[in-house]
Amino acid sequence: MVLASFPDRSWAEEVGPVDGVEPVIWHPAEGLPPAPVEVVVAPYVFDASPLAIVADVPSVRLVQLLTAGYDSALAVLPPEVALANAGGVHDASTAELAVGLALASLRGIPEAVRATAGGRWGEARTRESLADRRVLVVGYGSVGRAVAARFAPFEVRLTAVASRARPGDDLVHRVHGVDELPELLPEAEVVVVVVPLTDATRGLVGEAFLAALPDDALVVNIARGPVADTDALFRHAGRLALALDVTDPEPLPEGHPLLTAPRTLITPHVGGNTTAFRPRAVRFLREQLARVAAGEEPASVVRPGTR
Amino acid sequence: MVLASFPDRSWAEEVGPVDGVEPVIWHPAEGLPPAPVEVVVAPYVFDASPLAIVADVPSVRLVQLLTAGYDSALAVLPPEVALANAGGVHDASTAELAVGLALASLRGIPEAVRATAGGRWGEARTRESLADRRVLVVGYGSVGRAVAARFAPFEVRLTAVASRARPGDDLVHRVHGVDELPELLPEAEVVVVVVPLTDATRGLVGEAFLAALPDDALVVNIARGPVADTDALFRHAGRLALALDVTDPEPLPEGHPLLTAPRTLITPHVGGNTTAFRPRAVRFLREQLARVAAGEEPASVVRPGTR
Repeated sequence: MVLASFPDRSWAEEVGPVDGVEPVIWHPAEGLPPAPVEVVVAPYVFDASPLAIVADVPSVRLVQLLTAGYDSALAVLPPEVALANAGGVHDASTAELAVGLALASLRGIPEAVRATAGGRWGEARTRESLADRRVLVVGYGSVGRAVAARFAPFEVRLTAVASRARPGDDLVHRVHGVDELPELLPEAEVVVVVVPLTDATRGLVGEAFLAALPDDALVVNIARGPVADTDALFRHAGRLALALDVTDPEPLPEGHPLLTAPRTLITPHVGGNTTAFRPRAVRFLREQLARVAAGEEPASVVRPGTR
Repeated sequence: MVLASFPDRSWAEEVGPVDGVEPVIWHPAEGLPPAPVEVVVAPYVFDASPLAIVADVPSVRLVQLLTAGYDSALAVLPPEVALANAGGVHDASTAELAVGLALASLRGIPEAVRATAGGRWGEARTRESLADRRVLVVGYGSVGRAVAARFAPFEVRLTAVASRARPGDDLVHRVHGVDELPELLPEAEVVVVVVPLTDATRGLVGEAFLAALPDDALVVNIARGPVADTDALFRHAGRLALALDVTDPEPLPEGHPLLTAPRTLITPHVGGNTTAFRPRAVRFLREQLARVAAGEEPASVVRPGTR
């Protein structure tokens, strides 16, 4: 039997019985677990600091996140423990927000909202369509592919970039390497940033990245705030359009200039926070626990452990 | 040679030479044409009243609109003259706005815009994803199919309704008839209205239609304002979410209560007004004029003529 902890009873109940798995209810913020758990399902929060307690629970082999981002968990977990993110769980929700942010920005929805909030009909000037745009997806993992799949029927020209160049798939001819960005950015009209936050991606969307984009290009960030440089974003806001679900710092304090920067649309980090999450997370956990109980390699491991 | 009039020189130049077609520059608002034109390319405006002059130009066989809607042209043209709309020209632009309105409304973009306009980070509460929603496309012509194609990769359940039931296509199992709406509406979570405005569709989205929808359903109108009943929309705003690119009257006068109704997003009739229009219109006109010059039936005829 594999002892697996869930952060509260509702998760254990929704996942239901899994052969070879004994569920335990344990929230890492509550102190040590009531039993020697081997798999820890982390609570669905962005603050991973309570997970540090895992260092004091030698039975733990795998921490399973419910988020796609794993940067903060990586920072607090001991290297012996394997870490898996919720691969695929947030794809639908996050990818659709990327399309929604792009369409809202291109088609003038923020201006229309501000006009109607003042009791006025908006201004009907000619906008850029998403159709015919060159869309560059920077980060081509699970969420990045979901982003590309949703943009595909909009009559766009899709280009994908990952950490290393590789052959393409049914959506793009080839996947470009991140080292090709200097040649790709000057041609991009919509850039969707969907990389994980790592040492290699921190500040990726900085002055050089933004300055390489043509006037009126749109930058959509659904990755993590620190992937972009806030000062550089602010300098280019207006020349470029920005649509950001994540910022640095986050939340932006009241009155922060980026909140009211020109051509800037900001949603409050809601990429994964939808009704799409729970059913997909439950399905993922059921399959993941079944894999572990069967002695198979867990899926979506972002850092292997040594236990 | 077929004499075809363009409303200004730029259209004639962009379309370029077409075998068997002699271009004439003529704007119907300027009085009688300088030559006996057979095909009239109407100016791209929503007010069709200047087209009434065609009644005094017996050489005209076909009026070619640059809009998808044709209700106002139909009302002023003599029945001898065939009328064609710009079939397909606005599909990409209008369909992408429908998706943009749906995503913006579901994912709380209007609330985020209002928060940031006040210098504040928005409220990150759990929203309905587009994923898993039952999407009902009411009107399954050229634009309706383009709408369905764009919604398809979002993990939705698509249902299509047209004036009459017919077999489905690669997107839907079957196309339901409009008489099936009473059974379909109670199951719908996102309704996209994309019917032409005709006597049969005027007021279609009225009290009975809206009352049949479940709480929190979203109604997206990218058709024509009078397809919906403004008073009924206002009564249901809040119980339902509304995302309207068209209204009745249009524009809504300053201070009209619908502009600030709860859960209501209104864009100022910008469905077709994008950079997608011009290249598609030019391509369409080139093909349409070639057809007419070759003695073939014109495409996208919404009412045949007798000349």
